[in-house]
This record gives sequence, C-alpha cells and structure tokens, in this order.
Amino acid sequence: MIKSVGRLYGLGIGPGDPELITVKALRLLQSASVVAYPIADQNKQGLARSIVLEYIKPKQIEIPLYFPFKLECSAQPYYDKAAKTLAEYLQLGQDVVVLCEGDPFFYGTFMYIYNRLADRFPTEVVPGVSSTIASAAVLGVPLTYRNDVYVVIPAILPAEILKAKLAVADAAVIIKLGRHFEKVVGVLKELGLYERAKYVEKATMPEQRIVAIDRVNPSEVPYFSIIVIPSQWQP
Amino acid sequence: MIKSVGRLYGLGIGPGDPELITVKALRLLQSASVVAYPIADQNKQGLARSIVLEYIKPKQIEIPLYFPFKLECSAQPYYDKAAKTLAEYLQLGQDVVVLCEGDPFFYGTFMYIYNRLADRFPTEVVPGVSSTIASAAVLGVPLTYRNDVYVVIPAILPAEILKAKLAVADAAVIIKLGRHFEKVVGVLKELGLYERAKYVEKATMPEQRIVAIDRVNPSEVPYFSIIVIPSQWQP
Repeated sequence: MIKSVGRLYGLGIGPGDPELITVKALRLLQSASVVAYPIADQNKQGLARSIVLEYIKPKQIEIPLYFPFKLECSAQPYYDKAAKTLAEYLQLGQDVVVLCEGDPFFYGTFMYIYNRLADRFPTEVVPGVSSTIASAAVLGVPLTYRNDVYVVIPAILPAEILKAKLAVADAAVIIKLGRHFEKVVGVLKELGLYERAKYVEKATMPEQRIVAIDRVNPSEVPYFSIIVIPSQWQP
Repeated sequence: MIKSVGRLYGLGIGPGDPELITVKALRLLQSASVVAYPIADQNKQGLARSIVLEYIKPKQIEIPLYFPFKLECSAQPYYDKAAKTLAEYLQLGQDVVVLCEGDPFFYGTFMYIYNRLADRFPTEVVPGVSSTIASAAVLGVPLTYRNDVYVVIPAILPAEILKAKLAVADAAVIIKLGRHFEKVVGVLKELGLYERAKYVEKATMPEQRIVAIDRVNPSEVPYFSIIVIPSQWQP
C-alpha cells in the first residue's frame, strides 16, 4: 500500500479572542496530527499559539516556526527551514495545520510556507477574521457603506505616501502603528481626518485597550494597534 | 422587579460556507430568542438565513427584515420599520441577533439597524470573515505582504474613478461585479493589471465557481462575484 502524503492547512484563527476562530478552523485544528505556529522569540510560545491554547490537545505534535521579527530582509533561510520541517511530517502522511493570526493570506507569514509547499502537498487555506475588521466591531463604528472605497495601509510607509494613499479612501484602517503613531497623526491632521479617527490596541485580545486618539501616549503605542477611519457616508 | 431590555447582536456569519461562522457568532445565534435577517425578496428566505439554516432551532422566533434590493435611495422607511420591529422584542427583554453575510460593519445592512438602536439597547457586533478575504483563500493567491497597501473597490464606480483608486493599490479586491464586469476588465487592461486578476463567483458557497478571467461570460456575471488582484511582492 502506498502511503499518501499529508494535507497542509493555513488556518486563520482570527484577531485574538479564541471564540473568533471559525468552526472550520477549529475542527481542522483539533483533528490534525501536527500543529505549527510562528514564534518571534525562541523563548516565548508565540501569539498564535496563545490564542488557541485551550483548543490544542496534549497528543498533538507542536512545531514552533522561528521567524525573527526584526530580520525580515534576510528571513528567507528561516522560511526555508520551516518549510523543510513541515515537509517531513507531510511526507509521512501527517496532516499539518499552521496557525495564523487573522487571515493566512492577509499580511501573514503563512504565504512564505505556502509558496514553498503548496505545489508539493495538497494545501487548503481557511480564511479568518482580520483584526482590521474586528477593530471596527469593538470600536462600534460602521466601517464601509454601499459604494465606499476601503483602504488598509501599514503605518511604516513615509508620510507623503500615507497621504497619497489615504486621499483615495472613503474608509481606511492604518495597521502596525507602533513607533509610527506620531507620523500618522500628522498626516491625519493635514488631511482633515483626525477628528474621525478611532484608536484601538490589541482588538479582541484580553489586553484590548480603547482610548481617545488625543489621549494616546505616542511612546507607548504597541505594534498591534490600529487606527480606524470610518466612512462618513450618512444613510 | 424591573425587567431589563434585551441585547442586540450584529452577527457576522461569514462568506457562505456555514463552517466559516465563528464559534462566538454560532453560540450567540443559538442562544438568542429572536433571529432576524435581511431578505431582498418577500417570497424568498434570504441568503443570510440560508447560510446558517442548520443552526437555527425550531423554538427560535424568526424575523425577516425586508430591504428591497433596488430601492437603496429610498430604503430609509424599510430600515425604520425593521428597527421598530426589533425594538419591540428588545423592549420585552428578548435578545435579538441580526444575521449578516460577511461582517456586519463591512458593506452590510446591519449598520442601518445599528444606527437606529445602539443608543437605546446594549449592542454588540461580532466580526465575521469577509468574502473579500475568503476569495483569496479559495483562489489560492496570497493577498497582501508586509507593507502592501490594500484596496477594496465596488465595481459600480465609474471607470475613471476605478482607475484612480486602483492606481494606489499594491493588492486589490473589486466587489459586486455583476453588470460592471466589462467596464472593470477595460480598466484592468489599461492599468496593466489584467494578467494578475483572478475571478471567483460566490466564494465558499455551494455554487462557488472559479474560472479564468478571460473565459468569463460578461452577461452571466452575478452580483456576488469578485476580482482579486494579489500583491506582486516576491519574498
């Protein structure tokens, strides 16, 4: 009998609240032999694992995938190594799930695994709730109406580029604020968007914090914080 | 004893596959007294209800909310009526969930209910998986990397506006194609984006259909079809 290879799943586990995982991702998570997840620090368990910790069973094999946060330009060897490790399990016929905060194809690291393995093993991506959309929910601000153009922008971009991109948006979400908060606020003020802007840290996580944007301390803005500029369209 | 009012929930039920509802939305759906959902045709059950039909219990009260599809400009009386109906149940202390395809605050109709009731009743929005993101998953195309700017654009916009908005995007999703398909294709060709564009109808629904964009018959493009233009960024 020829042993078939395992299946690879990229599982969107949502923005942080363990209950915001989909029924499908939960089912696949609990039925896989191998549960893999990114870690940014070799001494910590990683955010994705911590979100779904209650769902992982003792008999499941856990594989931390070490992707150093600060080395993105030279991260290729880390992705190669992660793909090689997972391929060994897949080759043995074991199903592997890779946990992905939010959605696997939306600003994630799963793509680097996907691009290395999807042509060799049956692969499925299970979409998840993005923190971009969950931020609007916890802030209580309707995000987009009818014919609105919606834009998601990483805060790291230079002020002039942020300005040009925001200018086309009816509604926008600015992600990965961290140390870029003050630059972003400057751009929002220039564009007349500051009054509309809402701020949230770690939406749906236990540490979630909502604070008026003019009360934010720029030196304490975490990476996982978001500014939402909701649509102005009035029904 | 003073009877307290009920709680209102906007539940994101995801893009179409019943398993793409979140664990939280499913729990709230099954524990509410009243399940409301939009219908666009008074003789049909509505898409949102059909997605989660297997989860609704016989003892739950079902309230269809009639929002005629073609009358958006004069839809206010329909939203007023829907809000009034739900308020009656909430006033009696019954919890009400409103089913929303995708996410409640992302191009939905729940906002019209939210804007009328959230100041009078305790209200919570449960975010859901958007079809925009689910389309990338079923197409197997990583959508956004690292510092990409992501844009969602309704196809109804005029060609010149589509062009201007698409020009700022590293990755884009064009929604609600329907009869606008040919116009969108023209714009994509002008911008040199046509080769990258992927097409999907009714992503994750039983009728899901993926077809190469140059094989699409423009006269048969449904409203719930999407074009995904994935990021070109190469790791």
